[in-house]
Amino acid sequence: MNGDALCMLGISGFKKSGKTTLIEELLGVLVEKGLRVAVIKHQHEPVNIDEGGGDTCRVYQAGADVLGFDGQCVFTKAHVEGAFALEQAEQYLSGRYDLILAEGFKSSDIEKIWLLREGEDQPPEGITNIIRVLAWSDDRLSAAVLVIKEWLKKSFNRELPL
Amino acid sequence: MNGDALCMLGISGFKKSGKTTLIEELLGVLVEKGLRVAVIKHQHEPVNIDEGGGDTCRVYQAGADVLGFDGQCVFTKAHVEGAFALEQAEQYLSGRYDLILAEGFKSSDIEKIWLLREGEDQPPEGITNIIRVLAWSDDRLSAAVLVIKEWLKKSFNRELPL
Repeated sequence: MNGDALCMLGISGFKKSGKTTLIEELLGVLVEKGLRVAVIKHQHEPVNIDEGGGDTCRVYQAGADVLGFDGQCVFTKAHVEGAFALEQAEQYLSGRYDLILAEGFKSSDIEKIWLLREGEDQPPEGITNIIRVLAWSDDRLSAAVLVIKEWLKKSFNRELPL
Repeated sequence: MNGDALCMLGISGFKKSGKTTLIEELLGVLVEKGLRVAVIKHQHEPVNIDEGGGDTCRVYQAGADVLGFDGQCVFTKAHVEGAFALEQAEQYLSGRYDLILAEGFKSSDIEKIWLLREGEDQPPEGITNIIRVLAWSDDRLSAAVLVIKEWLKKSFNRELPL
């Protein structure tokens, strides 16, 4: 029972195992129910925050971290030395979330749902804290919603309207 | 003397008064001296965080706030209802900064350096907490560095190597 801890759950699996698809489907349910959700992910392309020709990037390149507001969203871009650890996430995420989904991060120790690719029948060795394995052919959305509901109740004593 | 407060200083003035230019020049000095600086600004263009074709934007559009790491920077994009207030900035900025520069925000009550445009000789009425006015023809960089040094000492009892 840890009411104040970060409710962070991994959605992990190899490439093409359906992580982003499941997360998008989950958001459709969770956001619809009024939950505040954050998603943490690796981005393969560099982040360009002012493709449109603004000067935010100039400021970032001059060595500052940047916080911007474009009328609808707040964005930040911060220099990081070395790797990014999930434990740092809380520093960057404002306010309280009902749920934080970490996409990937399969080597992390956080509790996670593991998604099998088509043809796979079990996770690889060495992956820790898997609370549920979902096969390619499972009804993943329904299963994941139920897993999340039970996990929030059991680990954080939080009952959410799922 | 408030050692823990946010060292946030406005760099304000009308459009084309040289705010971004001064901030960039300041960063050249401050970052060179090893200071950790954040810049807060309004962005006129919408923020596109995955122009390259990633799926971060899909997740954001599905209603989640996003935290991403591209190997060199951590970025976040968060939904905001209504306006953004400077008081919220602390929630989004990780860690401690030696100095936070807020570009614009002329209606805010934070202490600020006011930049005059060419031909202007004084700030408009109603701007509060101006600690220094800099004319168009001033040596703004030298003056601003000195103002910041003295302001950090007087208001926060912090002596930085400027």
